[in-house]
Amino acid sequence: MLSEFQEKLCENHPWDFSDLRAVFFNCTLKRSPKRSHTEGLMKVSQEILEKNGVEVDVIRAVDRDIATGVYPDMTEYGWESDEWPQIFEKVRASNIVVIGTPIWLGERSSVCSRVIERLYAMSAELNEEGQYAYYGRVGGCVVTGNEDGVKHCATSILYSLQHLGFVIPPQADCGWVGEIGPGPSYLDEDSGGPQNEFTQRNTTFMTWNLMHLARMLKDAGGIPAHGNQRSLWDAGCHEGHVNPEHR
Amino acid sequence: MLSEFQEKLCENHPWDFSDLRAVFFNCTLKRSPKRSHTEGLMKVSQEILEKNGVEVDVIRAVDRDIATGVYPDMTEYGWESDEWPQIFEKVRASNIVVIGTPIWLGERSSVCSRVIERLYAMSAELNEEGQYAYYGRVGGCVVTGNEDGVKHCATSILYSLQHLGFVIPPQADCGWVGEIGPGPSYLDEDSGGPQNEFTQRNTTFMTWNLMHLARMLKDAGGIPAHGNQRSLWDAGCHEGHVNPEHR
Amino acid sequence: MLSEFQEKLCENHPWDFSDLRAVFFNCTLKRSPKRSHTEGLMKVSQEILEKNGVEVDVIRAVDRDIATGVYPDMTEYGWESDEWPQIFEKVRASNIVVIGTPIWLGERSSVCSRVIERLYAMSAELNEEGQYAYYGRVGGCVVTGNEDGVKHCATSILYSLQHLGFVIPPQADCGWVGEIGPGPSYLDEDSGGPQNEFTQRNTTFMTWNLMHLARMLKDAGGIPAHGNQRSLWDAGCHEGHVNPEHR
Amino acid sequence: MLSEFQEKLCENHPWDFSDLRAVFFNCTLKRSPKRSHTEGLMKVSQEILEKNGVEVDVIRAVDRDIATGVYPDMTEYGWESDEWPQIFEKVRASNIVVIGTPIWLGERSSVCSRVIERLYAMSAELNEEGQYAYYGRVGGCVVTGNEDGVKHCATSILYSLQHLGFVIPPQADCGWVGEIGPGPSYLDEDSGGPQNEFTQRNTTFMTWNLMHLARMLKDAGGIPAHGNQRSLWDAGCHEGHVNPEHR
Repeated sequence: MLSEFQEKLCENHPWDFSDLRAVFFNCTLKRSPKRSHTEGLMKVSQEILEKNGVEVDVIRAVDRDIATGVYPDMTEYGWESDEWPQIFEKVRASNIVVIGTPIWLGERSSVCSRVIERLYAMSAELNEEGQYAYYGRVGGCVVTGNEDGVKHCATSILYSLQHLGFVIPPQADCGWVGEIGPGPSYLDEDSGGPQNEFTQRNTTFMTWNLMHLARMLKDAGGIPAHGNQRSLWDAGCHEGHVNPEHR
Repeated sequence: MLSEFQEKLCENHPWDFSDLRAVFFNCTLKRSPKRSHTEGLMKVSQEILEKNGVEVDVIRAVDRDIATGVYPDMTEYGWESDEWPQIFEKVRASNIVVIGTPIWLGERSSVCSRVIERLYAMSAELNEEGQYAYYGRVGGCVVTGNEDGVKHCATSILYSLQHLGFVIPPQADCGWVGEIGPGPSYLDEDSGGPQNEFTQRNTTFMTWNLMHLARMLKDAGGIPAHGNQRSLWDAGCHEGHVNPEHR
Repeated sequence: MLSEFQEKLCENHPWDFSDLRAVFFNCTLKRSPKRSHTEGLMKVSQEILEKNGVEVDVIRAVDRDIATGVYPDMTEYGWESDEWPQIFEKVRASNIVVIGTPIWLGERSSVCSRVIERLYAMSAELNEEGQYAYYGRVGGCVVTGNEDGVKHCATSILYSLQHLGFVIPPQADCGWVGEIGPGPSYLDEDSGGPQNEFTQRNTTFMTWNLMHLARMLKDAGGIPAHGNQRSLWDAGCHEGHVNPEHR
Repeated sequence: MLSEFQEKLCENHPWDFSDLRAVFFNCTLKRSPKRSHTEGLMKVSQEILEKNGVEVDVIRAVDRDIATGVYPDMTEYGWESDEWPQIFEKVRASNIVVIGTPIWLGERSSVCSRVIERLYAMSAELNEEGQYAYYGRVGGCVVTGNEDGVKHCATSILYSLQHLGFVIPPQADCGWVGEIGPGPSYLDEDSGGPQNEFTQRNTTFMTWNLMHLARMLKDAGGIPAHGNQRSLWDAGCHEGHVNPEHR
C-alpha cells in the first residue's frame, strides 16, 4: 500500500511515537462487508502510523449502534441502546483522531455528522486543569468521493474538531476525487486515486504532522493551562467581568 | 477594554511571550476612518497579546493597495501597483496570524477572500527545511456581524490557514452576532457584544492558545522536518513511488 | 400562532391553492414526544399553507425507520427495514417540500443529511418527459438554533434541492437564532423568536412564494420539457457530441 | 463550441425567448486580455442563450472599477470612483443573471464576493408592488477550477441569489474540475473539460431552465404580489403583529 518513499520515511528517523494512540472514524454509509473507498485512503494514513508504532483503533461507525443526539448517553433520552459511551473511551485514550468521510451531494455523510454530534455531546467534560476534555489531542480528516467536494467536507470537519479543543496540525486534510461527473471511486481499478501524487503527498504530510504535534503536546503535558480554563473563567466572571449582570 | 479577569490573566503567569510577533488582518469593507466593528473585537485579542509583550501589526486591508490575484507580486501581471509584497514581509516575520472579517450575506468579506488569495499566492515558497513557508506559525480568526454566520466564516478561514501550513490551536475562532435580523453591530451602544460572555471567553481562549502554541513551536524550532518536506517528496517520488509514470 | 397580519393575508386573495400538497421534513434530533423547536417555527409555515387549503404531511424523520444509504430501498442492501420507500410516496405526491433542521456545531443535523441522502437516492428516476423526477416541485427550508448558523444550513439544503430538480422560489429560507452563545431556543419562554419580525417575515414570504411558484408550475404542467430531458440527452450524445468517445 | 445536439436543441422548439435579457458576471481574478477559463465555460451557456435570441451582456468584473462596499454608490462613502451604478442598470434590465467564478483554495473568488456584496447593496430597493427589486428574475452559476470545489462555490452563490429575490430554476449550477491536485484548467489542451458530458449536460440544462423560468415569470408579470410585499409587511406589522413592541 505504501510507496517506497512512504516506507522509507517510516524507517529512518529519530522519533519515538510508540506511546501514541489514534482513533480513526470511517464514516462511510456502507455497512461491512461492503467495500469502503474511504477506508481505502484512510489505510494509507493508518499504515504510516502503525509502522511508527502508533496503536490505531478503526471504528466503522455505520456498523455500530451509535444513537442520534447530543447527549453523552442517549439511553437516558429514550433510545433503547447506544454504543457511543464505549466508543468514546477509545477517544479519551487517544492522542490522535482522524475522521474519514465520503462525499454525497457535495457534503460529508450523515454518519459523519452523527459522529461529530456525539463528539460534541461530550464537550461539557473538562480535564483536571479545567480545560475542555479534548485539549491536548490532534485531529485530521480524510475525504473521498468520485467527483467534487474534498475541501468543503474537510472544512467543516476540521472546524468542528478545533472548536471542540483539538489542535489542527498543518495540512491536516487529505482526499481524493476524480474529474467532475460520475466516475470510478478511489479503490476502483483505474481510478488513479492510489497513484495520485497530490493525494498521497497530502495523506503522508497529514499523518506525519499529526504525529509530530501529538508528540509535542504529549511531551508538554498538553496545552499549558492558563487563559483557557473553563472552570476558572466561570469562577472569574463572577468576580470581575465588565458585564454588570455577572457581578 | 479588558475585564478584570482578562487583565489578571495577563499578570500572573510564568511564560514569556515577548519575543513573539503577530499580524492582524482586519478585513472590514470600510475604509478608515470609518468605525470597524471587526476591529472592535479584534482589539480585545490584540490587547491581550500586547499586555504579554507580543508585537502586533494591524493591517486594515481595505486601506492598502492590495492587488487582486494569486501571484506574489501582481505588478508582474498587469497591475500598476501592489503593496502585498511589503505586507507579506510582516507575515514572514510573524509567529501568529489572525484574520478578522465582517459577515455579509452569511459569508466572509470580499476583502478577506482577497487577503487569503494573496497568502495562497506565497504558498509555493519553502523554508530551509523544504517545508511550506507558513510552517511553524499559528493562525486564528475573529468574525463579527449583526445577525448570523460566525461559524461558517470561521470555518473557511481556518481551513485556508491550516491548508497553507499554519497550526490551528484549540478554539481558534471567536466572534459576535446578535439575534437574527437587522440589529446593532458589535461596537454599537447596547449591542451586548462587549458584554457577551461567550464572545469574550472565546476571544480570550483563542488568544492564549495562539500564544501557547506559538511558544511551543518557536521553542521547538518549528514543526519537526520529517515526512512533511515538499522538496524531499518531489525528489523522492521520482525514485520510488507506485505511480509508474514517476519512475 | 399567526399574527393578525399573517391571518389577514390568508383571507383576502384571489388564488386557489387547495389542490396543492406539501411535505414537511422536521429533522430534529429529538424523538417524539420531546418538544422540537424546529417544529415550532415550521408550524408557522404549515399553518399558512393549511389556511390556504394546502394539504400538509409532516414527517418527523427521527421517529421513523429511515435507513442510512443512497439507494431507493436499503433493505436490498443489508438493512433489515426501511420506511423510506413509503415516505417517498408522499414526496412524489407533493408540489412543495420543506426541510426543517436544527443547527448543531454550525451545521444542519445528521438526520437532515440522512433525509437528503435518501432524496438523492431517488434522483435517477425520470418523469414521463424524461426530466428528473423532482422537476415541477418547489422547495424551501426552515432552520432553528440558539446561536448561529441559519444561512449556512439553508445554503446547503437549498443547494441540494435545486440540484435534485426543485425550483427554489425567492427567499425560500427562514430561521431563527438568538445572540451568539448559549441561550433560549425558539419555543423557550422569552426567546424572542416568535416575536422576531425578521423571522416571521421571512417565514411568511417563503411560504407564499412556495405557493405562488407551485401554482405556476402546476398550471404550466411542470417545467417545459426541452433542453432539460435526461433521456434525450443520453440518446443525443451518442449521435452528435463533440466528445469523440461518444460518437 | 456547441455540440450538434446542443445546436439542434436551439433549432427545433416552439418557444420565443427573444425578448429576454441576461447579464453574465465573469468573476475571474485575471484582467483582460488574459485567458479566463471561467469565460470558456460561460460561453457555452451564452451561446445557447444567444442562439435563442436572448441578449447577453458579459461583465468581466475585474476589468471594471467596482468599488468595495455594501452601498449602492460607493463614491458617497469615500471611494473616488465606482462603476457599479452603471453596471447595475444592466441587472435591472435583465431577466436572467448568471455568476461565473473560478475556485481558489476551495472558495469562490474575491471578485465574486465583491459582486455579490454590491448586488446585496441594492436589496433595499423595492419594485412597484413593494416586493424586493430582484423579484421576477432568475439566477444561475458557472464554476471552474482545476481540482475541487464546484458544488461548494455554487452553494453560496445560489443561496445569495435566492436570498436577494431571484428564482433558482432546477439544476442552476454547472461547472468543471479535473482530478484532485494540480492539473490543466478548463480551456487548456487535453483538460477534458469541453468534452465532459456531465459538465456540458449541466450547462445545457441550466441554460434552458433559466430560459423556461424567465419566460414563465415574464409572462406572469413576475411573482404574484401577495404575502411577499415588504412595503405591506412593514405597514401591517404596526397594526397587528403579536410582537407588542410593534403595536
